Amino acid sequence: MEGKLKALLSAVGPLDDRAMEKARERQAELAKPPGSLGRLEDISIRLAGITGQVHNTVEKRRIIVLCADNGVAEEGVASAPQTVTAAQAVNMTRRLTGMSTLAKHFGDDVQVVDMGIACPYTCPGILDRSLGKGTKNLYREPAMTREQALQAILTGAELARQAGADGIRVIGVGEMGIGNTTTSAAVLAALTGLSAEQVTGRGGGITDESFRKKKHVIAHALELHQPDREDPVDVLSKVGGFDLAAMCGVFLGAAANRIPVVADGFISIVAALCAGRLCPRAAEYIFPSHASYEIGYRLAAQELGLEPWLLLNMRLGEGSGCPLAFQVMDAACAVMNEMATFAEASINDDYLEEIRAGESFKV
Amino acid sequence: MEGKLKALLSAVGPLDDRAMEKARERQAELAKPPGSLGRLEDISIRLAGITGQVHNTVEKRRIIVLCADNGVAEEGVASAPQTVTAAQAVNMTRRLTGMSTLAKHFGDDVQVVDMGIACPYTCPGILDRSLGKGTKNLYREPAMTREQALQAILTGAELARQAGADGIRVIGVGEMGIGNTTTSAAVLAALTGLSAEQVTGRGGGITDESFRKKKHVIAHALELHQPDREDPVDVLSKVGGFDLAAMCGVFLGAAANRIPVVADGFISIVAALCAGRLCPRAAEYIFPSHASYEIGYRLAAQELGLEPWLLLNMRLGEGSGCPLAFQVMDAACAVMNEMATFAEASINDDYLEEIRAGESFKV
Repeated sequence: MEGKLKALLSAVGPLDDRAMEKARERQAELAKPPGSLGRLEDISIRLAGITGQVHNTVEKRRIIVLCADNGVAEEGVASAPQTVTAAQAVNMTRRLTGMSTLAKHFGDDVQVVDMGIACPYTCPGILDRSLGKGTKNLYREPAMTREQALQAILTGAELARQAGADGIRVIGVGEMGIGNTTTSAAVLAALTGLSAEQVTGRGGGITDESFRKKKHVIAHALELHQPDREDPVDVLSKVGGFDLAAMCGVFLGAAANRIPVVADGFISIVAALCAGRLCPRAAEYIFPSHASYEIGYRLAAQELGLEPWLLLNMRLGEGSGCPLAFQVMDAACAVMNEMATFAEASINDDYLEEIRAGESFKV
Repeated sequence: MEGKLKALLSAVGPLDDRAMEKARERQAELAKPPGSLGRLEDISIRLAGITGQVHNTVEKRRIIVLCADNGVAEEGVASAPQTVTAAQAVNMTRRLTGMSTLAKHFGDDVQVVDMGIACPYTCPGILDRSLGKGTKNLYREPAMTREQALQAILTGAELARQAGADGIRVIGVGEMGIGNTTTSAAVLAALTGLSAEQVTGRGGGITDESFRKKKHVIAHALELHQPDREDPVDVLSKVGGFDLAAMCGVFLGAAANRIPVVADGFISIVAALCAGRLCPRAAEYIFPSHASYEIGYRLAAQELGLEPWLLLNMRLGEGSGCPLAFQVMDAACAVMNEMATFAEASINDDYLEEIRAGESFKV
């Protein structure tokens, strides 16, 4: 599987400079002061680099939600019981959760994937790619084997490829997994060398005691397993989760298939950072959404050079920032595709002379 | 007209505490960690306070664009000639500009209002409420009379009332007027006591020389006219514009008619600040949109206690931040109206017991 990962990484091509140059030229012709639409302009130019086309749409959108349990939950680091992972995965297919409510409202596909849910459920709407009934408890042993981490990454990449085959124009990356702010903080610390204290937040909302425990668990696991920060697969296997590894794979697969991909909050951006460390070029295919309230978000986003578009103090996860981020991208496409150029808007010297001469402008 | 303004201000009622309490209770029942949807929750609660209903929609939306010329433009403080005000007002009705392209794309009404455009045009799509062919040059004399400022405010308020009568659920406040970042900076300095240096940005993009000139013009005008910071009408009449005064009126009229209203960028938020100074209660009806790149934006937003939702480095004006802000509000309404409660999502003790007993969850 190491060979398959290598092939995936080498399938990620550079952005199309020529298309980006054409997109920049088009933006300069639109009837507005240069740069005055800020990131909407930047987004449209980046999309051109990804697709090779100046005019793009994000009409078909999919949020891929990777669900899995984390053995570390037994240490009491999370606010909700493990059963909630299964329950909320099922509820997503029924469009009852926060993310799936927003996705339904805005017309986004939701694909719920079982990467390793611990509790039993029956729900044909969930895609079964389970690698086991949750990971091991990283406080005591590595979360998974290296082979499992590779398998999870390749599974995520295949989901992105399938989205492309289904005509999806932009992918969002969400998750559900009790305990996964703990694994994400551990992975972030391992990749950056920051301490557990610096990267750990309160996740879904825990007591002071649980918060202290959470930081201790992360610090202890890093000490115990000594993950190699130069090897994201090693990091993911020792202190990550099936959800995180598969999310990393979705980011890589999106880049390999030239599909723009949106990171949600803390967990999603840590998975994106894993993808960026495995393949720096892949980071150019990744877009931010909202600034998660969770402390580690900003650290991971900075590492990736991403600045969030939405400041909504959200910390729900699931991919809940993606529906509004898709609307921002849709706005960027609308500007590029529908706005008039200076010539079309008749703001040119002839027009100005005509106005100065007192002649009326006919609509 | 002073009496009519007084009547307008006293028509602004308090938020409905009981409806807000009910909205808070509903948010606490929704299947998510408390507060995890951040500002989407806050928005839905504020909307309840405004309308008196827990469940709201922003399905009918209108951006009111106040257009006027500013005599100060003859001092060379702007990057574009005055003719552009008329040209872009016309182009807005044709949905060719940045804001109007986005509004068309997202299905928002655009109402373009001539509050005092200097150059001639013929365009039946523009509502004529002109108070003159632009204001006087504030570098040399007061921009307008006190009566004109009052008339502009009352005109804006009437536009908001009409929007309510038309079934509009949320109003956005935009503008077009060459030179109006100069008037806005002057008004902001006058209302806050900050210096021209502290509040003045580059607007549509000007040279270093024009930028120095702009700051000098503002400092000189404040010194010359000594506007009374306790009297926003005095400030608007001496160093404001017809557009700014009418925008202030739209904010007040929206509040008086219990309609939520969105501020766009720098100019819009300065007009909102004028409304908030005239009637502190009115500020509770005002929502932010994006953080304008223009330096004074943050200062005015802080004065109003508003934190922007969108970080897009935009500085186009026109009301261009409103269409995406409306989408954020729409998302907030969707959460309140469509998301499941813990009971509906079956995340309760019975369900957990069932799961623990190994029984499957049926979809």
